[in-house]
Order: sequence, then structure tokens, then C-alpha cells
Amino acid sequence: MKKHDQDFMKRQNRLTVFEIIKNQNPISRASIAKQTGMSATTVSRIVGELTEQGYILESEKVSEGLGRKSMLLEMVDASVLSIGVELDRHRMSIGLVDLQGNTVCSETYSRKDDESSDTTIERIAAVTGELLKRHSIERGRVAGIGVGLPGIVNNDEGIVVFSVQLGWKNVPLAKRLSELTGFKADVDNELKAKALSEHLKGAAIGSNRTALIGFGNGVGSALIIDGEIYRGAMNSAGEIGHSTVDPNGKLCECGKAGCLQTYINISSLLSEANHYRRIHSMEELFEARRAGERWAVYLIDRALMYMSITVNNVVCMYNPDSVILTGELIDKFPEIYEEVKSLCASRFVWEPLNGSFRFLRSELNEKGVIIGSGLMAQRRFFALE
Amino acid sequence: MKKHDQDFMKRQNRLTVFEIIKNQNPISRASIAKQTGMSATTVSRIVGELTEQGYILESEKVSEGLGRKSMLLEMVDASVLSIGVELDRHRMSIGLVDLQGNTVCSETYSRKDDESSDTTIERIAAVTGELLKRHSIERGRVAGIGVGLPGIVNNDEGIVVFSVQLGWKNVPLAKRLSELTGFKADVDNELKAKALSEHLKGAAIGSNRTALIGFGNGVGSALIIDGEIYRGAMNSAGEIGHSTVDPNGKLCECGKAGCLQTYINISSLLSEANHYRRIHSMEELFEARRAGERWAVYLIDRALMYMSITVNNVVCMYNPDSVILTGELIDKFPEIYEEVKSLCASRFVWEPLNGSFRFLRSELNEKGVIIGSGLMAQRRFFALE
Repeated sequence: MKKHDQDFMKRQNRLTVFEIIKNQNPISRASIAKQTGMSATTVSRIVGELTEQGYILESEKVSEGLGRKSMLLEMVDASVLSIGVELDRHRMSIGLVDLQGNTVCSETYSRKDDESSDTTIERIAAVTGELLKRHSIERGRVAGIGVGLPGIVNNDEGIVVFSVQLGWKNVPLAKRLSELTGFKADVDNELKAKALSEHLKGAAIGSNRTALIGFGNGVGSALIIDGEIYRGAMNSAGEIGHSTVDPNGKLCECGKAGCLQTYINISSLLSEANHYRRIHSMEELFEARRAGERWAVYLIDRALMYMSITVNNVVCMYNPDSVILTGELIDKFPEIYEEVKSLCASRFVWEPLNGSFRFLRSELNEKGVIIGSGLMAQRRFFALE
Repeated sequence: MKKHDQDFMKRQNRLTVFEIIKNQNPISRASIAKQTGMSATTVSRIVGELTEQGYILESEKVSEGLGRKSMLLEMVDASVLSIGVELDRHRMSIGLVDLQGNTVCSETYSRKDDESSDTTIERIAAVTGELLKRHSIERGRVAGIGVGLPGIVNNDEGIVVFSVQLGWKNVPLAKRLSELTGFKADVDNELKAKALSEHLKGAAIGSNRTALIGFGNGVGSALIIDGEIYRGAMNSAGEIGHSTVDPNGKLCECGKAGCLQTYINISSLLSEANHYRRIHSMEELFEARRAGERWAVYLIDRALMYMSITVNNVVCMYNPDSVILTGELIDKFPEIYEEVKSLCASRFVWEPLNGSFRFLRSELNEKGVIIGSGLMAQRRFFALE
């Protein structure tokens, strides 16, 4: 049972006013009061606090329309920054994220397959220090670090429980990163971070039920309900890569047969292609398909079918108002998005739910995880302050 | 943005106190204050209101343990009742549900396949009147009527959008039922009602992420998150019957191939069995299996495999802490529950999530929908009061 006392109400109201100014920037006090139903006094008190702390300022713009002209409130976008990190098997990207979810800067480094967690964490800490120095950012302005990565993450305790891609098991990432940098650290699954950023700043602004599906080195999904990430009991909700789509299918690395990921993730596709001839990359595979080579047509068409089935299964389970496709395969090969969209509409989505959702492409693309992780760190900061 | 003003806080606090007394009955004022963090004055004010309205009373029992003895508060279970209804193709059950989710009485009637919605609604109204009369229940004590049925329901407007089983399309059930009975009416999908009742009063008390899966005339699921039904954008979340589990599978009545329900719902199983020999019921089919007839062994084993796959797919998507199996097949054939449970553990649930949830059997069985629908009507009543 949630306690609805004065304190809780105050914190909630503060967060509400803060989010409204952030999202509707610039905005008048009167408009905030009208939208929230709070009294003018309450709004003014909160605005006063936020101004004093340097997060907002009164702009010179005046409100339009009839009635008394009034000063508008604006966010000081750079008053607080956070550090957003994306980790993947061969890559590590780090950026500074402002209050509006813009990346002030971001950099990408390569990462070795067998790089230990200690090394990776030390590198993140080092790059963080450099970035802050280079951009002359005071440490007091940093709300924290957020890290998104593929795998099962205990986000409450900041522990990477299990990541096939990174080769990590039970790594207390948040704790170590905090020790090295002095900042609070948050860790989450990359698709959950991505879904949050697309919901707040990308393709699905205004959606109440956003499902995001990632096709790339793995297959996964995430669901945002009323602005909150749906996590499930162990923060593993959306792990569809090992849902079964064909009980007579190929054996998966997990020990079951016919897991979704065996048909559509990059390494499975490449490994199968190499049964036929030497293929080094998805680009080569797509070239072969465009050239009409039957084996490549077969492999990709089958993958597209399973991607469409994935959309159907996610839609039947979550009944979202928006479905966002994302991931390396979607970013690199525009035909995938178009073909899956058309297959879904014509054949694979259950008729009563066909047309019940917006079919969207990720807008933040490769920046999505950095932004989402950065925003997570900020949300924690403001909720606790 | 939710408004967190005094009014909202008051309503929430009232509901919180009410739920605590309902669930921890009997309980002292001090214990309520301790659990909620509310002041003694606030608790006393709310308790006073509820007592005056006849929902609770001070019992003679005194609290145990050290400290001052104090009067305990008890719910007057029968102070408010609601009517819970379950509709299915061939059946209609109606009962009176008290505040604790007990059925004071319930009755089942047969329903013809082609019975019009008008006729069914008139029959519900007539039985409701009779029940109230027979049990001498004043109309003022009735919080409303709740109806649960298979199909897609617009629960906001009380419209049955689409129900294959009932043969209904766009039936304004709540409105018509209200007109005929004079009571507020709520309508929902049967599995959503059932999940709510199992969560509040049955197998999954205390769970925060309950997934319920129904195997019977159809296949479906429902998810309860923190005590609330997850509905999705159109109240269709959990409609897994048409998720695809084998792209090379049989054509489904929906026009797609390999839908889950083609392998496990009763009518599909019977229709397939009849390709081999005349079979009239699931009982006969199970008898044949027990007698070792190969075709029956094959059909049921395949169904059990797909049921286990269903559990895996639901677990991967929702990451629940509890999975409840329910529905006619589970209720009538105890071996199904046991075999699916064992297949899940040994072969079909993805290893990292194996053991991450409690595997449960429905406790309320055929009463689940009546109770859940009745409780839904009560929740609406108390939230609005």
C-alpha cells in the first residue's frame, strides 16, 4: 500500500511541475496550475524552489493569446547533465546527456570480445573523466551515470546478472562504477533504456503503451506503460529471444529448440549462410539477396517472416498503441522495416488487432541507449532529491 | 500527469484504509496508522466515516501482544454485495458476491448457441431480480453488476466488441443491463476477471506480477501488475490464442497459420480427433489416451507441449512471479496441470527464468469469473463513492 501523505504529495507535485516545464518549455505558471489542478500558490512555491536551484529560469517570452501577459518559465537544459553509456560486445559508447535528452557529445570506442568487466569499467570511468574535463563540466552538475547493455540486469542493485554478449555473470557494475567515478550509477537492459528514450524523446512521444522490438545481435523487446518501464519480477520482461516459435526448429544455444532468436539474430543468420558459402557480414548476405541468389532470398525471407510473427506475438501479448522497430538490422537495412511492416499488415498480425497500433521506426537510432540510460540516471536524481 | 491534490489524497487514503481493513480484518486503528504512515487523526476520521456508512464495525476482540489493549475493526462483509456474472457459449452463471469475495449464492443456467444478446441480457436481469428477492437483499446494498465473458471487451464503455464464443459483435451490454436492472454494470474479458479474483482471493494472493493462462474453449492470458489488471491499449492484452507458434502450422479460423489455439483449444482437439474416429468429448479423448491409443497419445502430448510453450512464452514476455493455470481443461483433467508443470521445468521454460515463478493451479476454479466480475463492480463502486 502506497502512503499518500503530505511528503509523498509534495515530491510528486514537484516532479509533476518539473516534467511539465521540461516538456512544454516555455510555459506560464498559470498554465501549469490549470493543467495540474494545483493552486497558484503551490505552483509558485515549487517554481521558486526550482529557480533557486538553477534548474529553471524566467524567460523574456510572454504568453500568447488573450488575457494578461505573463512571464514564461524555461528549463536550463544544461543545469544538470548525466552520463549515458551503451555497452555491447564489440563497442562502448559514452555521451553527456542534458535535461532535454540531447547528447551534448558522445564517443564510441571498440571493445574486445574477451575484455574483462574490470577493464571495461575502468575504461568507462576514464572516458567519463576526460569528457567532463574537455567540456569543462563541474562535477556538481552531474546527476549520475546510466549504463545500458544486452542481458539480464538486476536494476535495483545495479548488477549484471547474465550477459551472453559481454560474457559477464554477476558483475556489480553500478557499485564499481560509483567507486571509481564518485557518481551514482544505474544499470539496465539496453532495450529498456532505448524504449524509455524513444518514448520520452523519440518516435513514441505521447504513447501510453509503447512496445519496442530490437532486431540485431539478439532479439528482445521492452514495454513502456504510462511512462514507466514494465520490468516484471526480475527485470526480465520482454526477453522474447527465447520464446518458442517452432517446436520443431533448430537447437538454440540455450538448450531449447525453435527459439525466436535462432531465426533472426545476426550471428544465427551468418552462421547459417556459411553452410552454403563463405559470408562475412550481413551486408554481403543482403547483397546476395538483392542479386537474387536463392539461398540468400530464402534466409532473409524466412527472417522477415519471423520478424513479422514477432510483431504479432508482441501485439497479442501487450496490446500496445505503438510498436517501434529498432536494432542494427533495422538501422542498417531499410528494406527490413518496410517489408516487415507490409507483411504484418497483409498476413501476420491477427486481424482484430491489425491497425490497432502505430508502426514506427526508431528515431534516436544508435543514440537511443545513451540517451535512455542518461535519462534514467536523471530520473533517479530528481526523484531522490 | 496525475493530479496529486488534497482530494486525490483523501480518496486514496480512504481506499487504502478500506482495503487494509478488508484484508487484515480484524485490525486496530494503531496498526493501520503504522502501516500507512497516516496520522492517528486521519485514520480515526476515515474509520468514523466508514463505520457511519455501515461498512465496518468495532469488534469486541482486543489486540494481542504488549501495550494498551484496543478495539479492533471488522468489515461488515455483507454490508455491500455485488452481482457477478459469467457468460460462455453454452452457459450462464450468476452469483451474489460479498465484500470478501465470497459467493453468497450462485446459479448456473444453460444458454443456447444462437441465443441473441437481447435474450441473454433479459435473462441476466430476470435472474438478478429473483436472487435479490429470494435472499431478501435490499437494492440499496447492491454495488453493481459485473459480467465476464470470452472475447474482446471495451471495458470503459461496457461494450462487447467481438466474441466468437457468444457470436456477438458490438453489443452495448453494460448500458442495456443497467437499463433493465437499474444497477451500474461493468463488463470485462473473463480471464481478466478471473486473474483479478485469483490475485485478490485465490491462488496468487500477495503476488505483484501474476500471469494467468486459460486453457479451454479458447486460449488466453491475463496479467495483474501491482494489483491492477494490465489492459493494453484496447483491453486486448493477453490475447495469445492467435500468437503464432508454428508458421507451417494449420490454418486457423482467423485466417492465419499456426495460431496457438489451433493446437490446444477443445474444439480444435475434438475436430482433429474426429479425423481418426468418432469422438464426442474431451473425456473420451483422454480415455483413449489412457488406454494407450497412439493417435490420442499423439494429440494430447502435442497439446501438452504447446501448453508448455505457452507458459514459456508468457514467462519470457511478462516475467511474472506467479503463473496460474486455469480453464476447463485444467479443471477437468488434473494430469494436464501436473504434466505441463513437469514439462516446463525439464524442457520448455528458458533456463534463466526456470524457477523464477510459482507454478499454480487456479483455486477458485469455476467460481473465478463470478467472483472477479463481482469484485470489479465493487471496486468501481468504492472508487467513485
